[in-house]
Amino acid sequence: MSTIESIPSADTVRATVTAYMAALESGSSTTIAALYADDATLEDPVGSEPKVGREAITTFYSALDGTSQKTELLAVKISGANAAFHFRVTTPMGGTTYEVEPIDVMTFDDRGRITSMRAFWSPADMRQL
Amino acid sequence: MSTIESIPSADTVRATVTAYMAALESGSSTTIAALYADDATLEDPVGSEPKVGREAITTFYSALDGTSQKTELLAVKISGANAAFHFRVTTPMGGTTYEVEPIDVMTFDDRGRITSMRAFWSPADMRQL
Repeated sequence: MSTIESIPSADTVRATVTAYMAALESGSSTTIAALYADDATLEDPVGSEPKVGREAITTFYSALDGTSQKTELLAVKISGANAAFHFRVTTPMGGTTYEVEPIDVMTFDDRGRITSMRAFWSPADMRQL
Repeated sequence: MSTIESIPSADTVRATVTAYMAALESGSSTTIAALYADDATLEDPVGSEPKVGREAITTFYSALDGTSQKTELLAVKISGANAAFHFRVTTPMGGTTYEVEPIDVMTFDDRGRITSMRAFWSPADMRQL
């Protein structure tokens, strides 16, 4: 069990979620991975083999390097050191724009760094605009 | 690891989520608890002590017995045997109507029964209409 001191405030959690949206738009895997704790885990989509640690997480996001995405936060629910949030990502690729609206679940350390991320979505949710 | 045979189809998962919305509206803890597997766990809100097993789960929902709620499913994301969904519940209580929009995360067995539920929300999310 965590002690009460180790739980980040709702404002701290919300700030990290907002920073995560901005980082996705930055198209920089280093910027995104910097929001994670060193030994964080990432499971995207849920059911896939989790990536463990910043290096594996940076590699995961490197698929976004150089892309320009738009994000919109649709809903954020915070329970202590846990958050679930629904958001939209639109990505232009070639002549086409793709849109997906995952629900992500994250946990956070006392400094608001992401300690785990699980992304709920399926390829069937991907729309072509 | 589950075998591929033990994963419910997305349609089965979606049907249980829809049935869960209807069961919440029914105002019957027995109807709601019937959607859970015998040894399921329930953590509502996330961070609270999980309830384990149908009896504890029925007791948890008994707070709804005799109430009349309205629900609206806002978004459902399914990854294999896992779902995350955002929904609205409105509950009239005394002369006032309360509204909350949690994000719930559930896992399911091969027959689509709920094996775990975690509800992301905080009292600060509760609105008085």
